[in-house]
Parts: sequence; structure tokens; C-alpha cells
Amino acid sequence: MKSTRLASLPTIKRLPSYLHLVENAQAEGKEYISGTVIAEELELEPIQVRKDLAVTGVVGKPRLGFPVDQLIQAIHTFLHWDRDHNAILVGAGNLGTALLGYREFRRRGMNLVGAFDLDEKKIGKDLNGTPVYPLGRIHDIVIESAVRMAILTVPSSHAQAVADLLVKAGITAIWNFTNVKLKLPPGVVVQKEDLSSGYAVLSVKMRLRSTDR
Amino acid sequence: MKSTRLASLPTIKRLPSYLHLVENAQAEGKEYISGTVIAEELELEPIQVRKDLAVTGVVGKPRLGFPVDQLIQAIHTFLHWDRDHNAILVGAGNLGTALLGYREFRRRGMNLVGAFDLDEKKIGKDLNGTPVYPLGRIHDIVIESAVRMAILTVPSSHAQAVADLLVKAGITAIWNFTNVKLKLPPGVVVQKEDLSSGYAVLSVKMRLRSTDR
Repeated sequence: MKSTRLASLPTIKRLPSYLHLVENAQAEGKEYISGTVIAEELELEPIQVRKDLAVTGVVGKPRLGFPVDQLIQAIHTFLHWDRDHNAILVGAGNLGTALLGYREFRRRGMNLVGAFDLDEKKIGKDLNGTPVYPLGRIHDIVIESAVRMAILTVPSSHAQAVADLLVKAGITAIWNFTNVKLKLPPGVVVQKEDLSSGYAVLSVKMRLRSTDR
Repeated sequence: MKSTRLASLPTIKRLPSYLHLVENAQAEGKEYISGTVIAEELELEPIQVRKDLAVTGVVGKPRLGFPVDQLIQAIHTFLHWDRDHNAILVGAGNLGTALLGYREFRRRGMNLVGAFDLDEKKIGKDLNGTPVYPLGRIHDIVIESAVRMAILTVPSSHAQAVADLLVKAGITAIWNFTNVKLKLPPGVVVQKEDLSSGYAVLSVKMRLRSTDR
């Protein structure tokens, strides 16, 4: 059921919602879930659901829908969430601490082996189950634990310097929560989160609703 | 230069990045910015940039590009970020506190008039410039300050109950950071953030990079 077909970004972004929904169906003891039900729950068009789930290689059966167990497995495989990814987090402020407490990530294969901060009051402590180390230990721990992925939640003014440090240590994937567009060597992948995007969407929805009336 | 044309979600989500970039160009004293430069900076196709910016009603000039001042104004207008939106935040935990400290939102018209929490130790304090009140005061403050928008950062187990409270008080737009799909009456708009989406994209990028080699 593996597939290396390329999927569009919006499709990939929707996969966690599908997974969540299909896991709920599994918890309720269902063997199949219909594309129509998925579409209604996620407020998508049924054709979009079929297109999205096609990337997993799982095909729905007429009248029954998608086989639940197989679909869960296939989404995990597609996202490589069927294996452990050691990760670190740099910048244990409020956002960093919130992310360390996000249990969903651990369930999806993300194994946070350490958090790093400048603040001596935090170092040596345990934040939501993850030990906090000084920045100077990044290199050691990345090598020791074969870490490839880092979550970057430092202040923007430190973002590029810390990213350079991470790349030097061997990090090849950075989840960037700062508003800095990082300069990275080829071969290092990055995903930039921009919270303003969600605010923009909500703003347009508010505007459309008010002109509706 | 106003436009009420409908724009696709991915286009709306990219507008804050355009705005950020064009504001930087303005700060550097530039009068025009070319679509090609924008495309390169944001790693998009030039045709995508033209399509996206068309929703603002601003058209680029041949050889010169987009007029910077006009484009900034038009994006603000399109997103309704040219006026103030009073907002509240419910759930002043780590994520809530991080969002209260996100200065970008204030620059984009979001005026956070209060945060609400159950924790008595937080009530009466000031979190990143926003006063913290008990949940029981939501109704009063929403009415007093004509608040329409609420950021929801409570634990998932409280999400629906708090959303009901918000709607009752007159909130018509909810930015939902919980993993609960809220049941809301028609006329209330919602934008759900799912941090797992970004992790999914990064996971696929990591997978593609490793199969490249």
C-alpha cells in the first residue's frame, strides 16, 4: 500500500485530520468509513476526499467505503509516522513549552530527546517530560541520539544563528516557528509556520460573513 | 482598489507572507517590487504570485512591478486588517501566553482586550500586556468592548463548553487551537489550527529528501 506519488501541499496538510477522524471510527469499532461521511465531517467535497486519500494508495469499496485499519496504516506509512524520529526543540519559552506538551506529536513518531535554552533557571529541569539543556550541548546530543529534526522556537533575532548551529550539528529538517526566512544549505528541509496565515483566513471569513448580511 | 472577489484558501494564507515582504521593501525605501523578486523570495512560481495578488485588485506595471505602498494598503483592505478588531483569548496556558505575546497580531488590527482563565493565580495579572480575568467575566467584557473574535486555547475537554459560552456572549468568530471540532450555530465562523499539518508537511519533505539520495 506504499506510495511515493507526489501529493499537493493542501492534501498533505489535510492528512492529519483524516487520520484523526479514521482513528475515531476505529475506536468506535467500525471496519469501514465512507468517503461521504468523511467529506461531511471535514466539510470537504467528496471528490476532494477521494483525491486526497488516493495518495495513500488505499481505494474505497463501493457501498462500504474505506477500510479503516488499512487506511490508518497507509496514512502513517505515507507520512513516515510509522517510525520514530528523534527530535530536539530549541527555545523553551511559552510556545516551545506548549509544543513540548503536545501529546499528538509523540503519537505520530516524534521523539523529543531534549529542549535547549539560554535561561539557566530552565536548564536541568524537565518541561512536559523533556529535559532542558544549555545551547552548548546541542552538538553532542544531536550526534549521540542521531537527531535529524529540530523545532525552532527561539526569538527571531537568534533564529539564523541557532539554525547555523543546528545544521553544523547534523540537523537536516527544521520546523521553523520564527518569522525569519532562514538561509540554509541545500539538503536541509524546512517547514515554516506562520500563525498570521490562520488569522488572515479568519479575517476573510469574518468579512464575508458581515457582507452576507 | 477594494475587491470582494473570492480568493482560494491557499491564496489567503499566503497574503501575510506577501505583506511581510512588501513591507520590508517599503522599509528599504523601494517604490516598486517585481513579481519575479517576490516569487524568488517566497519560493513560488511567478504566475502564482500574479494570481494571488490579483485578489487585491492591484496590478503590476511592466518592467517596474507592483507599487509597494498601494499593495500594502490593498492587502490590509482585503483582509480587513485596516481596522481594529477587539478580541479575547480564553485559556492562558503556555500556548495562550505565547499568542498574547505575538506582536504581529496587534500590528494587524487585533486588539486583545482580555484573557480568561480558571487559574486564580493568573487572574488579575497582566500577561504580555493583556489583563487576565475569570471565565465568569467573559459575557460582560464581550458586551462592554463589542468583541466579536475569540482565540480558544483551553484544554480540549473544555473546548465545546467554552465555545457555547462565547457564542452566548455574542462572539461570531472563533480561532480554535484545540483539537475539537466545535459544534457552532450558523453565522459563527471558525478557523481551526492544526499543528499536526505542519509536522505532516515536514515529514513528507524529510521522506522525499531521503529517497532522493
